[in-house]
Amino acid sequence: MAIHNLSLRALRESYRNGDLEVRALVAELRAQALAQSDYNAWITLLDEAQLEPYLVRLDGVSPDSLPLYGVPFAIKDNIDLAGLPTTAACPDFAYTAAESAPVVEALVAAGAIPLGKTNLDQFATGLVGVRSPYGEARNSFNPDYISGGSSAGSAIAAALGQVSFALGTDTAGSGRVPAVLNNLIGHKPSRGLLSSRGLVPACRSLDCISLMTLNCEDAARLFDIVARYDSGDSFARANPHYNRARYFHHSAAGGIDRRFRFGIPAQLEFCGNPETRALFERSVEQLCALGGEVGAIDFAPFEEAARLLYEGPWVCERALATQAVSRSSMLPVIAEIIAQGDGRTGMEAFAAQYRLAALKRRCDQLMTGFDFVLTPTTPTLFSRAELRAEPIAHNATLGRYTNFMNLLDYAATAVPVGFTGCGVPWGVTLFGPAFSDIRLLGFADLLHRDCQLPVGATDLAPVYAAVQRAAAPPSETVDLVVCG
Amino acid sequence: MAIHNLSLRALRESYRNGDLEVRALVAELRAQALAQSDYNAWITLLDEAQLEPYLVRLDGVSPDSLPLYGVPFAIKDNIDLAGLPTTAACPDFAYTAAESAPVVEALVAAGAIPLGKTNLDQFATGLVGVRSPYGEARNSFNPDYISGGSSAGSAIAAALGQVSFALGTDTAGSGRVPAVLNNLIGHKPSRGLLSSRGLVPACRSLDCISLMTLNCEDAARLFDIVARYDSGDSFARANPHYNRARYFHHSAAGGIDRRFRFGIPAQLEFCGNPETRALFERSVEQLCALGGEVGAIDFAPFEEAARLLYEGPWVCERALATQAVSRSSMLPVIAEIIAQGDGRTGMEAFAAQYRLAALKRRCDQLMTGFDFVLTPTTPTLFSRAELRAEPIAHNATLGRYTNFMNLLDYAATAVPVGFTGCGVPWGVTLFGPAFSDIRLLGFADLLHRDCQLPVGATDLAPVYAAVQRAAAPPSETVDLVVCG
Repeated sequence: MAIHNLSLRALRESYRNGDLEVRALVAELRAQALAQSDYNAWITLLDEAQLEPYLVRLDGVSPDSLPLYGVPFAIKDNIDLAGLPTTAACPDFAYTAAESAPVVEALVAAGAIPLGKTNLDQFATGLVGVRSPYGEARNSFNPDYISGGSSAGSAIAAALGQVSFALGTDTAGSGRVPAVLNNLIGHKPSRGLLSSRGLVPACRSLDCISLMTLNCEDAARLFDIVARYDSGDSFARANPHYNRARYFHHSAAGGIDRRFRFGIPAQLEFCGNPETRALFERSVEQLCALGGEVGAIDFAPFEEAARLLYEGPWVCERALATQAVSRSSMLPVIAEIIAQGDGRTGMEAFAAQYRLAALKRRCDQLMTGFDFVLTPTTPTLFSRAELRAEPIAHNATLGRYTNFMNLLDYAATAVPVGFTGCGVPWGVTLFGPAFSDIRLLGFADLLHRDCQLPVGATDLAPVYAAVQRAAAPPSETVDLVVCG
Repeated sequence: MAIHNLSLRALRESYRNGDLEVRALVAELRAQALAQSDYNAWITLLDEAQLEPYLVRLDGVSPDSLPLYGVPFAIKDNIDLAGLPTTAACPDFAYTAAESAPVVEALVAAGAIPLGKTNLDQFATGLVGVRSPYGEARNSFNPDYISGGSSAGSAIAAALGQVSFALGTDTAGSGRVPAVLNNLIGHKPSRGLLSSRGLVPACRSLDCISLMTLNCEDAARLFDIVARYDSGDSFARANPHYNRARYFHHSAAGGIDRRFRFGIPAQLEFCGNPETRALFERSVEQLCALGGEVGAIDFAPFEEAARLLYEGPWVCERALATQAVSRSSMLPVIAEIIAQGDGRTGMEAFAAQYRLAALKRRCDQLMTGFDFVLTPTTPTLFSRAELRAEPIAHNATLGRYTNFMNLLDYAATAVPVGFTGCGVPWGVTLFGPAFSDIRLLGFADLLHRDCQLPVGATDLAPVYAAVQRAAAPPSETVDLVVCG
């Protein structure tokens, strides 16, 4: 089984060179996915007939004519792909999607090819990947370890080289945690930039479709393709002109010709894991060596916001989203969490929203003057056996640095930075205000390149663009041309 | 009892000319307020000792050195003035304010003089002005008619010429309804531009302090003074550069050298009142004669949003805001409304917020291409006797065109346009997106001047600025100077 570098840049080069051909590659990847079914990455793989419409439209088309020509991708199974079941990892909930989610449609229109729908923690409620009736997802580096979740299968498929990238979703950390535990970039976009139509809601006011990619450049390019204002999505927001992929290389390695400032939590928690602590400390040193200046920020208000996600009334949203399915059809752990939304009052909901508004004001103030904030993505990581012993507590631990992100309306990029002794990778998160996606990806790229990690769970070396000076992004102002 | 034109422009001229002197005027106005106590406009008037600190700081100061030199104003008694009780029209709730609300502080710093605290519908819950243990507020034109509420006393005091302007609050229409029923401009600012600290909440996520003035220019000038970002207010938003009073005259009478477009509801409701219908139709004709082009817009989504305010979970906010006081201390009608917040669930709260988000998207789309939307401020108006017969239903009728405004995050200016047969004035509302305050006031001024109404409830003629061509506002872009 030949493993290919499927990053966008490497794959396009292979198509151009004739080293790879779309139909052959897709058949090969499908076979690989079937052969690696022990990882429990997939819920539904497209069969040959289902793949054909996506392939036939590329026949005779030049690889340069479509931005995502022949790019294979995976779709978390809480996002609609026309004609396929959407299960949200709950068979009794499943329905066949009449049309694809707009984000999927945009990718397909750009030439990408969906291979199938991936496994997840049921109703995207969990950060572990084992809460699924479709089998416990296994880490792509060490199958005894958790893959992280809830976008478990998406991460595994991309890491194993079955797809170039995968769509996850990220309400509480579901796109970031499995990304770094499988050596992927996990970008959680600013809320509202990617349409949430065709997505089974977890917390509808917070949900984001997220990108799981082999490198930051791919995330920036994909972001540009899918960040399209959707007037049919009540929570949609327009992407400002300065948050575009064309400004990515300015922040990326070599493009930065200035110093930058980043914050780290004054209080850091690694749950006694010296390996993750050391990896975090090394990341801080790397960023400083790359031109960064670090400052500590009080993390208490961020942590209080994080606790609101499950302890506060936002669990009501999970209850609302699953009203159509009986609790007895759910895994007991999921039913138990969602049931916490039943008894909440409207007064509690508003009171918590007031508290959140105050916390956001405070957190925004704390971030002032920093280009981004750097945190661990998770304090530590767990084997599947460890998780079985403490399924609730360990899941909660994994969300410590992720749960606040959507509540506080920030964008975040999770970056793998190295490996732990068990062979499983681990990572950090860069976050910043809404609409800072491309800036974050640029800084993340700086760190990611410096880590010199292989491509996903393969032993392939990454293929990067030659570093070029690129146009500086406008600082949140309009582009201006003066003629005369 | 001499009645003065207290509009900002007229009053400054009187101070400059020496026709009026601050201490004498304030004493005279205080006496007038006491003499007109039958209107039940005031809950607390400052006594001479309490007024002294505001007066002594103007001694020997030139009228031109402070933007609001010697300008008397009234404060609705749910807004804090340091050292005075804040009652919210509920004696058992009353507390003595340690400091003034930031909006009051900004006015005082600019030279304005608070005369006292005004009567209101208890806890700002009502649009009628009769729901107060401090007496039923009486209309300044016909005491048998309702003043409108909840900012009842503020409107009466300003209309009677006891103050130059008054602060109201406006969650459901409380600043707009009493304004037009007393021949005043009622400007409900965009949410978050005026600090809500020091304000007894009604619905904390929606409340706005509002401006009740004798003309639109005064509202624009006051808006500039009080629209200051307050980092201590969780719901504060910064005022964009283009929404400043210096652009007011561009939109105002004579400054407009272009045609404009405005929408009116395709469905109009006047509750069978031919007078208010005729006044509305005349307003449309006036605006068209002034350069406007009118188009009808489907008003169903606006009306659905309006119903959410009391039928939806936002009543939970009223219950939260009054937790410290026993329901038995409230007027029965207020206790009954607020009690509707008790039984609501968190799921209802989120579901209603989803519905509101969808409605806002739809309403925003309907407003596209219009400079503003014109509606009646109220469908009709009521005598106090009529209201007593149908206290709940008539109150609800008054909110038909006002209740949606804050939920949908719009700014609004209510403008009196003429008189009904009972002698009571009536008006229309111009509304537009958040941060369109100054544009709205400009268009409102165009209509208001054309109506040629007297000053408040006096028979004085207004004093306007000579119309000048003024700088065009930047169209939501940054100011730019190119040198070379």
